[in-house]
Amino acid sequence: MTEYKVIFQPEGKRVKVTSNTTVYEAAKLAGVDFVSICGGKGTCQKCKVQINPDLLQQPLTENEKKALVQDEVSAGIRLACQIKVQKNLVVYIPESSRTGKQRLQVEGIKTPVKLDPMVQKFHIKLSKPTLEDPRSDLDRILDELEKEKRLTELKIKYELLKNIAPLLRNSKWDITVTTWNHDQIIAIEPGNSTNRLFGVSIDIGTTKLAGYLIDMNNGDVIAVNSAMNPQISYGEDIISRINYICSDNQKENSNLLQQILIHKINQIISTLCEKSGVLPNEIYELNAVGNTAMHHIFLNLNPRYLSLAPYTPVVRKGINLTPESLGIEINQTGNIYCLPVIAGYNGSDNVGVILATEIYKRDDVCLALDIGTNTEVVLGNKDQMLVCSCASGPAFEGASIKHGMRAASGAIERVQINPETLQCDYQTIDNAPPRGICGSAIVDIMAEMLKVGIIDVTGKMNKSLDSSSLHKADDGYEYILAEANETTIGNNITITQKDIRQITLAKAAMHTGSVILMEELGVTENDIDKVFIAGAFGNYIDVENARFIGMYPEIEISKVEIVGNAAGTGARMTLLSKKMRTIAENLVKNQIKYIELASKESFQNIYLNSTYIPYADLSKYPATSSLLRELGKFPTKLPHMF
Amino acid sequence: MTEYKVIFQPEGKRVKVTSNTTVYEAAKLAGVDFVSICGGKGTCQKCKVQINPDLLQQPLTENEKKALVQDEVSAGIRLACQIKVQKNLVVYIPESSRTGKQRLQVEGIKTPVKLDPMVQKFHIKLSKPTLEDPRSDLDRILDELEKEKRLTELKIKYELLKNIAPLLRNSKWDITVTTWNHDQIIAIEPGNSTNRLFGVSIDIGTTKLAGYLIDMNNGDVIAVNSAMNPQISYGEDIISRINYICSDNQKENSNLLQQILIHKINQIISTLCEKSGVLPNEIYELNAVGNTAMHHIFLNLNPRYLSLAPYTPVVRKGINLTPESLGIEINQTGNIYCLPVIAGYNGSDNVGVILATEIYKRDDVCLALDIGTNTEVVLGNKDQMLVCSCASGPAFEGASIKHGMRAASGAIERVQINPETLQCDYQTIDNAPPRGICGSAIVDIMAEMLKVGIIDVTGKMNKSLDSSSLHKADDGYEYILAEANETTIGNNITITQKDIRQITLAKAAMHTGSVILMEELGVTENDIDKVFIAGAFGNYIDVENARFIGMYPEIEISKVEIVGNAAGTGARMTLLSKKMRTIAENLVKNQIKYIELASKESFQNIYLNSTYIPYADLSKYPATSSLLRELGKFPTKLPHMF
Repeated sequence: MTEYKVIFQPEGKRVKVTSNTTVYEAAKLAGVDFVSICGGKGTCQKCKVQINPDLLQQPLTENEKKALVQDEVSAGIRLACQIKVQKNLVVYIPESSRTGKQRLQVEGIKTPVKLDPMVQKFHIKLSKPTLEDPRSDLDRILDELEKEKRLTELKIKYELLKNIAPLLRNSKWDITVTTWNHDQIIAIEPGNSTNRLFGVSIDIGTTKLAGYLIDMNNGDVIAVNSAMNPQISYGEDIISRINYICSDNQKENSNLLQQILIHKINQIISTLCEKSGVLPNEIYELNAVGNTAMHHIFLNLNPRYLSLAPYTPVVRKGINLTPESLGIEINQTGNIYCLPVIAGYNGSDNVGVILATEIYKRDDVCLALDIGTNTEVVLGNKDQMLVCSCASGPAFEGASIKHGMRAASGAIERVQINPETLQCDYQTIDNAPPRGICGSAIVDIMAEMLKVGIIDVTGKMNKSLDSSSLHKADDGYEYILAEANETTIGNNITITQKDIRQITLAKAAMHTGSVILMEELGVTENDIDKVFIAGAFGNYIDVENARFIGMYPEIEISKVEIVGNAAGTGARMTLLSKKMRTIAENLVKNQIKYIELASKESFQNIYLNSTYIPYADLSKYPATSSLLRELGKFPTKLPHMF
Repeated sequence: MTEYKVIFQPEGKRVKVTSNTTVYEAAKLAGVDFVSICGGKGTCQKCKVQINPDLLQQPLTENEKKALVQDEVSAGIRLACQIKVQKNLVVYIPESSRTGKQRLQVEGIKTPVKLDPMVQKFHIKLSKPTLEDPRSDLDRILDELEKEKRLTELKIKYELLKNIAPLLRNSKWDITVTTWNHDQIIAIEPGNSTNRLFGVSIDIGTTKLAGYLIDMNNGDVIAVNSAMNPQISYGEDIISRINYICSDNQKENSNLLQQILIHKINQIISTLCEKSGVLPNEIYELNAVGNTAMHHIFLNLNPRYLSLAPYTPVVRKGINLTPESLGIEINQTGNIYCLPVIAGYNGSDNVGVILATEIYKRDDVCLALDIGTNTEVVLGNKDQMLVCSCASGPAFEGASIKHGMRAASGAIERVQINPETLQCDYQTIDNAPPRGICGSAIVDIMAEMLKVGIIDVTGKMNKSLDSSSLHKADDGYEYILAEANETTIGNNITITQKDIRQITLAKAAMHTGSVILMEELGVTENDIDKVFIAGAFGNYIDVENARFIGMYPEIEISKVEIVGNAAGTGARMTLLSKKMRTIAENLVKNQIKYIELASKESFQNIYLNSTYIPYADLSKYPATSSLLRELGKFPTKLPHMF
């Protein structure tokens, strides 16, 4: 087969590919970081690249025709996934098509937990064998642990037996034994090493990975590290990744997506160790939370049926397994624990949220939203908890929005609109020149546009307004946040009418989840005593603006608490407490009820009503209604109720 | 380094080796089967080879001078382990230096056991998932097993989870679940496979391996296969092998000896499967018995301290582990169980003997001897069992005896001496022309020689007898069993004065074990109600002759029972019954007391007294004494008592 050379600019990365490889595939091979939401199917329209049009005769595909405006086409902008390499090419990747360095949310609420880790250490001194006392090496250890530490019926990992004979003799019969669950010996070390007892918890998000190194002797988080989920280049959302796995070569694809994830987790562990001076061998347990798809891919379980009704997971309860069976680089006789998942679309991350917020032991009714590509909602208290998952999509993470981007340097993160000039003030991450808009600004811009009348409660832009910030571009009306000359991308940064629709659908999905759970539990806004906002961008959003646009029902702002990465907190709690692990398993088995939104009769109507900003039934938003009235923006014609 | 070619005749096997490699090492490299008791140290004097003396200038070593008579030296006979290759060589290996094809003892007593295997199968049919019932695949299985089969709190092997999603769907939700110990799922198969449930038990002897394929639905042994322990070429006895492992590169040597053993066990399993039409995947458990050194080497546990006082094993209790961790080729999510060992010199084979003979539940006092290179002795009943191990050596297995050989074709296995002519009648295995003497004939010859007066109770040959069967050879007096012209080895087959000494020491060791245990338990010959003779050549010996020469105390012959490979029977019992496994563990922990013979004050004297035939204190052998008197062979001067 003929091979062609593709050079990616501005870095100059080179790769040789066979003819008919797509530019998108070539970019992945070359290791160029690259946005891909749909995994190369041509539907997300994000993978824009620039190629000299004189050198590229290939006509526009249907997908490209939909995605590109005339100016872009003239400038040689194409979709990388649509172009097949048929000659040597130089490809320029604009800033806006890059994944970029991320601001990753890793901090979470600090929920105290009584220390009782599954992994414990015991220092013992043994007597030497004699002809009168020729007990086996293991019996000597077991007898002493029984006598001194009241540990009975301990099992031992076979691998440890291979080395104990020389270890006991070299250590002069003075050793530290590490146990798991008080019933199994998982490590034996010379001398007294009881002060070195570490664990790692990992939050496996669709987009990001966060790792926490914990000193299990005191519960302190001694190092934190995070990274992008490297599976992103195989699809930004869960469905794309499952589709990728379940295409040809399922076994190979499944192994690949597992292995790149585990490789990255090992890098996180290695960095945690470097930061803290802890050795990987001193980490005796790792526990992991994530949505059910991430959970299945991490464990290399078949994810196919997660994406097909009735969305059945392979396994729900918690799983213990060896580091070796996954290739995780901690102490090889240690343990990996994956928290239980709730349902096909409700993972162990949500179990973590329930543990961290302690909803499971509260008398008052609580609502929790863990906002992400999928938003998990919990409603209830110690008696019962209803949960659901809302397909909120990636809009709040910056994807599917024309100038959306992740919370990285240069992202616009805060926005205010001057009600007189309708011009925009913004703040960017690191105060860098703007290159896009991230989630927190997306919330702000929606609220602000409604407040100043750029949009109405239906989300429609008011085309009659006279402002230089509003104009009609090739692909429709848009509001300009930053002029081309202020930005690093050489273009205006805008919010389009289409973007507003995407954002509205996203918030409508979340809102529908909360409303249906309230219906199911038979409570109203007034019955809810506490709202927890968790998730990747939770720490950065303006909760009032979020409520104003109807991301969640109108509950008193004083009741709203931002809890950050609560899933991670929950994971850490189970690392530190055997009891928390039992609680997690019991909750999933007996107390958490998963509600499949799509199966509810009222779903369609509530969803349509939720596509108004904040909601079709404004009587449910009295405070918001007042403010709109005050600003003269209350609709003259009330929204249609479905 | 210079390389030389060595050709082994008569097969013509060739190998290239560097200079100064020994011929013994070269033979191992060439894959020539070869006797080696000492593992190449030059002490066993067994590895005789023939090399044209004109081509070999190398002078005799001290070891060779001790080992070889002048005729041998003239004929070019040398010890393979003493000769260093310094030119191309042609080496002839005489029949007598070959390991040879063995008659392997695999049959054992059939002790009935109530079927309750650790591994069980359950056929279940599941309902399909729906939106109303979207339980996880695993929950669906667990719930059904709980409802229909009353199995609760089942765990599952992680590896199985990887495949259950497609398996359930392809099998139309009709499956068979295999459980282990009623608490773990170890296999899931489509449809109803409950009638296919197999296990293998393996008896790992120092010399031989015996494998039994068991149908766990009815307890039947459906195939038997045996093979030599391939570790033999690294030393015939335990100590040689431990020394080999613990020389340089312990880890490598330990892996090697484990791997060749496991490779051979896999061949046995493969043959069992071929014979019976069972698939390796239908074998869900393998259990193994062996002496403690074999146990440690099988598990790759450090054997060093087994051979050093106080002879401490790494582990005593039973071990469960995965087939994968050893490389055993049965169902990979199945289980391997190694029965508990008693002490450094008392293995799980002896636990098997105790289970098979049911000593542990008898009221009457029993004595059991499992005869081998080490002879294990058990004495006791349901209240307490004392055990010891006697270093009986390999004499009864044909080693360290001038014309000794294993029980293979052409071995003399039965002997009678005409009291008039002092000439010998013999029977050989397969009625082949004789090529050596095996264990059962060694017992006979000793008894017969004493009866006809060729030896006296001290074992000394009567040189004053006038018979062509008795003559003085280069290395001392010997009794001719077969003349050179009758044999395949071109020489007389004889028993020498030195051989008699070796045999006497071997039987003295066993006898000492029995006597010391009787002392410890406070019983006499008359208190013993039952004697079990187990072991490789147990089925073939004449128990009267064995008692006559003092292999065991003088107990009524009607009380003696031959039980064959009782260790193997015990292993099979634990495969079929969970209860038997618990009994085995409890016996080792609480009821079996290991007696270290060498630590007993009376040991030395009893041992010296036991070097008389049958014993220095003839009052302990009244029936034997009567017979000797009848034959006129009762000693005129009573033996010296220590």
